[in-house]
Amino acid sequence: MGWDKVMPSRPVVAVAGATGAVGVEMLKVLEQRDFPADRVIALASARSAGKRVPFRGGELVVEEMTPASFSGVDIALFSAGAGVSKAFRDAVTGAGAVMIDNSSAFRQEADVPLVVPEVNAEAARRHNGVIANPNCSTIILLMAIKPLLQFGPIRRIVVSTYQAASGAGARAMQELLDQTREALLGSPLTQQVFPHPIAFNLFCHNSRVEADGYNEEERKMLYESRKILHDDGLRVTATCVRVPVLRSHSESINVEFENERPRLEEVIKAYRESPGLLLVDDREANHFPMPIEANGRDEVLVGRIREDVSNERALDLFASGDQILKGAALNGYQIAQEWIRLTEGSAAASTSS
Amino acid sequence: MGWDKVMPSRPVVAVAGATGAVGVEMLKVLEQRDFPADRVIALASARSAGKRVPFRGGELVVEEMTPASFSGVDIALFSAGAGVSKAFRDAVTGAGAVMIDNSSAFRQEADVPLVVPEVNAEAARRHNGVIANPNCSTIILLMAIKPLLQFGPIRRIVVSTYQAASGAGARAMQELLDQTREALLGSPLTQQVFPHPIAFNLFCHNSRVEADGYNEEERKMLYESRKILHDDGLRVTATCVRVPVLRSHSESINVEFENERPRLEEVIKAYRESPGLLLVDDREANHFPMPIEANGRDEVLVGRIREDVSNERALDLFASGDQILKGAALNGYQIAQEWIRLTEGSAAASTSS
Repeated sequence: MGWDKVMPSRPVVAVAGATGAVGVEMLKVLEQRDFPADRVIALASARSAGKRVPFRGGELVVEEMTPASFSGVDIALFSAGAGVSKAFRDAVTGAGAVMIDNSSAFRQEADVPLVVPEVNAEAARRHNGVIANPNCSTIILLMAIKPLLQFGPIRRIVVSTYQAASGAGARAMQELLDQTREALLGSPLTQQVFPHPIAFNLFCHNSRVEADGYNEEERKMLYESRKILHDDGLRVTATCVRVPVLRSHSESINVEFENERPRLEEVIKAYRESPGLLLVDDREANHFPMPIEANGRDEVLVGRIREDVSNERALDLFASGDQILKGAALNGYQIAQEWIRLTEGSAAASTSS
Repeated sequence: MGWDKVMPSRPVVAVAGATGAVGVEMLKVLEQRDFPADRVIALASARSAGKRVPFRGGELVVEEMTPASFSGVDIALFSAGAGVSKAFRDAVTGAGAVMIDNSSAFRQEADVPLVVPEVNAEAARRHNGVIANPNCSTIILLMAIKPLLQFGPIRRIVVSTYQAASGAGARAMQELLDQTREALLGSPLTQQVFPHPIAFNLFCHNSRVEADGYNEEERKMLYESRKILHDDGLRVTATCVRVPVLRSHSESINVEFENERPRLEEVIKAYRESPGLLLVDDREANHFPMPIEANGRDEVLVGRIREDVSNERALDLFASGDQILKGAALNGYQIAQEWIRLTEGSAAASTSS
């Protein structure tokens, strides 16, 4: 199987969920990076149709998304929830567009590649019209451990997250701001999005807890990591926590190698040289990755790299990454780029043969 | 060696650092629990002398602490920083008072017991005039794992903390509130206590980073846990993080047993029955320990207890505890209580012999 569409040099791009936190950022990413789109179409639910969103000095009028919206579209960037992605999958692929989906709808399907371009770009080559964007916490985790993979197999990861409100969407970010204002005034807190107050508080991730006690977010970190790294034996235990931070997730990561751990100097060198990462590891100044410095940045910040005193095969590290950018919109954009590059490659190959 | 003072039935108590976050709470604890003090003296630096603090329906006038302040004092509860504790140790013990010290000044001295009453109360029996109150993160960690100790030796702990501003004192709590107000208004943030902005941000703990990459707070969690549990081989790797929360610390804890892990039902039962703990573990309602529910409570909240899918000998759990109460003032108060109980015991024993 495989998808034989050859991408035009100036594709038509649809952004589905254009008024959400990720959709808005996706339009910015397309604009700032000067993606060679022939046309960009902003799609959303009927409720948002008619709204105007700024784009390339002008405006896009948001259109109501219907199955007919995808006629003539080459790339559809979806970030409107798993239900919407499922409902529109056939319309998108039927119209000949490639769907790059930010939801969890298809991530575990065998013929849907799950891609973090810095980690497994080649997986984007073979698909049946859908490429999935991994969960944001998974992307940040895999970016943070990517440089370690060259030193030998990883046996086990223990990770605790510090997740921003943005992971639950634009309304959740607003809820954090509103509740914080209310808390400072001593007023009762307005709760609409999260199951617990978020102002000056934290709580275990607001996804369903399964029979084994792990919540869905934690299971994603395990199963998506296994799929992306092609390692069904990878062991991950995650504890996912929502904190009163706006848009960057942080993660405290303990990585145990199957064999001997690499020397710290080698590890630091690998981090310095890794694309998409920024080493922030100044012990003297007590300066390590922080959400406010990750906000708005493409790179995932990694630091506090140290030899675990409790296990001679393990390392500890700490990472912060912009959940809306690398955790969602930017990674989706990079998948689109990667797929175009791969398609051009194969088009070139077939031309030359 | 040992201390042979017999405590009077109505001791005179001094609170050193009475205007700080912990001192204020200590006075409340003494008042609310109706500690049988003959008299309570509030001591602080010259800067705070003359201030009035409410106590038992009346007020205490804060006195400037000098070496002469301890004449006639039986118990001195210190929470004024390590430097102050060191400077006054001889004056306190020389006056025949027992110093219960919340600072890190003496915690690793061989003849200074380090006590969490629910864990190692008996250690308070033998001392030379000073009993140390452990670090707040250590207390919460040990309270959270205490019920597990009955199931066999623990091999290794991986812990990541979510620490409140209160751990850095009352001014740090105010800084969190002030900066948050400023951030909501879009004003520049006023930074006086923490090295990094705390509003809508988080950062690795603001204590000195040592040559091995661990900061002082993380080292305390290792070395204090070893001392309290009398287990020099205990392995702990901690990552300590400051979050924008006011006064309760949370911890994500992975505990690996030396041998087989206990069955989950047994573990849950042990948590239900443990003094000083409150099991908050409702998977259906997604209700687990949270700082806002730990605030003002004596108990440490523990939940999210689950079998680690990455290691068949390990368990994961999550805890929240009031940093000022069980993490500091309440634990100090309990040490005083325990010491009185032990002294009464030995006085009774010597009388009956």
